[in-house]
Amino acid sequence: MVNIYYNAWQEKYKQPFGAIPIKQTVHFNINVSDFAKAKVYLVIREEDSAKGAETFMMNQLEEDLFHFCYRLGEQAGLYFYYFKIDLINENNQVSTYYCSYGEDGGAGKIYDSKNQMPEYQLTCYETAEIAPDWYQQAVFYQIFPDRFNNGNENGQVNAPKKNSFIYGTKEDTPMYIRNEKNEILRWDFYGGNLKGIQAKIPYLLELGINALYLNPIFEATSNHRYDTNDYFKIDPMLGTEKDFVELLDALHQVGIHIILDGVFSHVGRNSRYFNQAGIYGEEVGASRNQQSPYYSWFQFTKYPDEYRSWWGVADLPEVNKENPSFQSFIYGPKGVIDKWTALGVDGWRLDVADELTDDFIGGIRQRLNTFKNKILIGEVWEDASNKIAYEKRRKYLFGNHLQSVMNYPLRQQILDILTMQKKMSQITKEMVEIQANYPKDFYYNQLNNLGTHDTERIFTMLNQSEDDLDVAWGLLFMMPGIPCVYYGDEAGVTGGTDPDNRKYFPWNHVNPTIYQDCHKWIKRRKTHSSLMNGEFYPFYTETEDVFGVLRFNQEEYSAYIVNRGENDKVLRLADLINPRQFNGNLSILEKLFSEKVIEGHANLFLSIRI
Amino acid sequence: MVNIYYNAWQEKYKQPFGAIPIKQTVHFNINVSDFAKAKVYLVIREEDSAKGAETFMMNQLEEDLFHFCYRLGEQAGLYFYYFKIDLINENNQVSTYYCSYGEDGGAGKIYDSKNQMPEYQLTCYETAEIAPDWYQQAVFYQIFPDRFNNGNENGQVNAPKKNSFIYGTKEDTPMYIRNEKNEILRWDFYGGNLKGIQAKIPYLLELGINALYLNPIFEATSNHRYDTNDYFKIDPMLGTEKDFVELLDALHQVGIHIILDGVFSHVGRNSRYFNQAGIYGEEVGASRNQQSPYYSWFQFTKYPDEYRSWWGVADLPEVNKENPSFQSFIYGPKGVIDKWTALGVDGWRLDVADELTDDFIGGIRQRLNTFKNKILIGEVWEDASNKIAYEKRRKYLFGNHLQSVMNYPLRQQILDILTMQKKMSQITKEMVEIQANYPKDFYYNQLNNLGTHDTERIFTMLNQSEDDLDVAWGLLFMMPGIPCVYYGDEAGVTGGTDPDNRKYFPWNHVNPTIYQDCHKWIKRRKTHSSLMNGEFYPFYTETEDVFGVLRFNQEEYSAYIVNRGENDKVLRLADLINPRQFNGNLSILEKLFSEKVIEGHANLFLSIRI
Repeated sequence: MVNIYYNAWQEKYKQPFGAIPIKQTVHFNINVSDFAKAKVYLVIREEDSAKGAETFMMNQLEEDLFHFCYRLGEQAGLYFYYFKIDLINENNQVSTYYCSYGEDGGAGKIYDSKNQMPEYQLTCYETAEIAPDWYQQAVFYQIFPDRFNNGNENGQVNAPKKNSFIYGTKEDTPMYIRNEKNEILRWDFYGGNLKGIQAKIPYLLELGINALYLNPIFEATSNHRYDTNDYFKIDPMLGTEKDFVELLDALHQVGIHIILDGVFSHVGRNSRYFNQAGIYGEEVGASRNQQSPYYSWFQFTKYPDEYRSWWGVADLPEVNKENPSFQSFIYGPKGVIDKWTALGVDGWRLDVADELTDDFIGGIRQRLNTFKNKILIGEVWEDASNKIAYEKRRKYLFGNHLQSVMNYPLRQQILDILTMQKKMSQITKEMVEIQANYPKDFYYNQLNNLGTHDTERIFTMLNQSEDDLDVAWGLLFMMPGIPCVYYGDEAGVTGGTDPDNRKYFPWNHVNPTIYQDCHKWIKRRKTHSSLMNGEFYPFYTETEDVFGVLRFNQEEYSAYIVNRGENDKVLRLADLINPRQFNGNLSILEKLFSEKVIEGHANLFLSIRI
Repeated sequence: MVNIYYNAWQEKYKQPFGAIPIKQTVHFNINVSDFAKAKVYLVIREEDSAKGAETFMMNQLEEDLFHFCYRLGEQAGLYFYYFKIDLINENNQVSTYYCSYGEDGGAGKIYDSKNQMPEYQLTCYETAEIAPDWYQQAVFYQIFPDRFNNGNENGQVNAPKKNSFIYGTKEDTPMYIRNEKNEILRWDFYGGNLKGIQAKIPYLLELGINALYLNPIFEATSNHRYDTNDYFKIDPMLGTEKDFVELLDALHQVGIHIILDGVFSHVGRNSRYFNQAGIYGEEVGASRNQQSPYYSWFQFTKYPDEYRSWWGVADLPEVNKENPSFQSFIYGPKGVIDKWTALGVDGWRLDVADELTDDFIGGIRQRLNTFKNKILIGEVWEDASNKIAYEKRRKYLFGNHLQSVMNYPLRQQILDILTMQKKMSQITKEMVEIQANYPKDFYYNQLNNLGTHDTERIFTMLNQSEDDLDVAWGLLFMMPGIPCVYYGDEAGVTGGTDPDNRKYFPWNHVNPTIYQDCHKWIKRRKTHSSLMNGEFYPFYTETEDVFGVLRFNQEEYSAYIVNRGENDKVLRLADLINPRQFNGNLSILEKLFSEKVIEGHANLFLSIRI
């Protein structure tokens, strides 16, 4: 029997860890033992390269150790590799293969055949996406503008839309007003507005927030405003452009940055551009005039009633992102990005990034680069390194496209830890896999959240356990990436899926325990630099009921350990399993854990300055 | 062949015309001719009397004229009669019968058998219901309070209800927010209020209004407020009791009277009395406590979930009107009627009078009689003289119960005239039938309308023809009874059935033509006493395309003639057919019509002072 071992996540086998810039060198080491003679090959291919797979014979450094030093090419992209081992007997030679288990960690296993063999992924990127300092240090707060706060003195709702409804009270439960075909009959509003956000700056500062992400604010029909009607106008229910400039100024004066939601995949059916109902005049808009300057943006299958729309939702006519007129409209000079960024917006979150082309995202990025210290975040729900959308591998994180994505996988991992729906070992491996696939800076740029306008409220997911929510905050704030608090999660707001997750902020009923826990973690994050920029090692115990996060940098070592089991646990470094193996100073680590006891169902934050 | 003729609507045959007070004498004359010998009998029975039918031989005054003078008894009620004619030959005697065609006018026809023979009705009443002067002279305006006007300076909505919706704009189309079972999910409000009514007093005065009928204003859950939650409290969305007193004072100061909607058949499921959801506390209300003082009001079939409710609508638990505690609550000292009437309310419209018992209505009336100059109007949709509800003949108009009913039949008659859906002769007869069945004062007290919150808008029913609406106003204001304008009908508001007939008043889009037409007719009504108190003779022409109304008193003769045909018509008195035959001064009538020509599709108002 032969023994073969390689682990893509351990530097003993692959160096450096993780994604690697173009033209850099990667060292591969593989152990092949218990067999008299073997020839070992690295088989590696650059995706989409004409070259196909290349096979390199590895150098035998020691009896059981083979090594190869591979230099990446000049193009960013994904590489895939495996090992071929020719086992040589007296008479014959047998080829065997070693490669990944799939999603199950950095180690692999032996395969007898190449068929259906999962290769290792190696991400090769062009540019390290080093985010602006403000972003790296940010604690974000996501606001769904209709639901946060009304800043008018008498609480009056600005410019209510024709044939819409305003909730009787701010405590009302959100609902959709639909017909039997499930179509929206009227949109429902609470009347939150920009002045309302401005009025709550003291609250945000007190909580420790220094960056805002606003859901769409441009003129639209719905309350979520993902159906943009005019990209150059603040929705009148939210206020005026003057209100927005005042909000920007007020935020910047106290050091709060702000990013907007860029919704460029589709527009509203009643937008200035499509204008189905003729709201913008008889002659304006593609749906009413084939000579409209916007006509070429859309794809009509039968004019004017049948047209391509986002997921078939007739409310949202899809725009052809390859249309030069639309591209220029969005990211050309004096385009949408230009206008609002010049006004002071600090970055953009791109809605449904999968629906945008790489070129389109690249174009936005290029335009943003003409400003300073901006951030571009994409809405991507899965591993963004190997996402295939519309049969194309996406270039999100290879450089010069996105700088960050929303980290939806993390939310699920945190829920899995708290509900113990998966093994701690499995969750840990899922975390390291993404860490290994993403360029380090990009990984640290992720916008982390426990919930958004598109998910159930975290407090509801945790069966309204304040204790569990405290742990969830802990995991969120311990992770690399930029924490983002969904408005109201810090107040104990409950709710299932949309629209229940979009309740109005309960200003008179903020849960003090939850608020204090959130506040505590924000403060920890800001006073412990390791939580912001430290190395990241998630770990677990063999008992599968303890999960932990280790973060460390030159200044300090911090750890957060969650015991979901019944029993007390002694924290012995040797018992803490990390798929990458701990790096860093082991004696400091010993000191950090120092055989502390963590009680059942408890959790522990540890930190020592070096 | 024998010729027999009698006409219950002509004084030559029956005197006096119409309903007759108790203990009064009625003269019957019948013609029997072209037969050698006959004995003629009046067969008359007092409904519900133990006596049964009595047969009186009539006196032969002339060869073909038989007469009988009958004295009514001491009880109000309905009498039914017919004639029996024994035709005597040489050898034998044959009985034949003469009585009503049914609804087809005052004349009758000969029947060979008594089976299924429709008798003539004779209404015998106890008391002439002479309404207060203010009421006789009133031009009413019906206001659905949520939909008329918001009197707050900034248009803010008072105290919106929890889990309700406010329309985004006042121009929004009303809609129900229902689930797939058609149950109301949330109630919808525009936010009209009492201050809003007060603010529009100048508008009402300018229009010529001098009385208001308000749909319910007590605390309730819905926008229509027929689901009373607290009879002693103004709904907070409408304002406070102080607001109401101020409104009363302001109205009375300018001579406008006001009546309220008394909804006593049922209450709201979330009322203080039933309290299903516990809004009024854990222990209050029949549905949560069998020791509740209100428990005896309701009829539970399975406590607490199954209970008797209005037409099975679970929202509206029905109250047992025979329950003494409820009776005392409504019309006892310091009861509901007492409280608001003492505050200055000038009368009540009783919702679903058919659902109230005669005793209950009588009790309310008795309480109202302790005040001065009040009016009590019942919601009855059909001929109120012979209405049977729950297998009982109702005592609405026999005296000391209602003083008036809402005249829904008139609305249909006016629509029939304008749409020519029925023959003019038929419509005329329908009018006279009710005139003959009602005590005269009661008939003149009817609240006439072209539409209410329970019907389609008149303008919509008339296909938005301004000309036809002018005719409809004309017919409304020419009729005996008190005209009542449903808010917005004078502004050209359109709409089908509920909720479309409950739009918000279009203050910025009052149709000037319609407003002026309405205003013109109100003015005519007020400046022509004959339109208020004059004798009433509707008429038509043999061509069936002309309908007219004649009104006259000691001071003047007025007529309104509507030509729905294509051709011009010359108005010759002899051509104008009235089932009662014109009474009054024929020479003045000749002068009034004086062979004027009325063009096709035109109409004409004539009036001369004597």
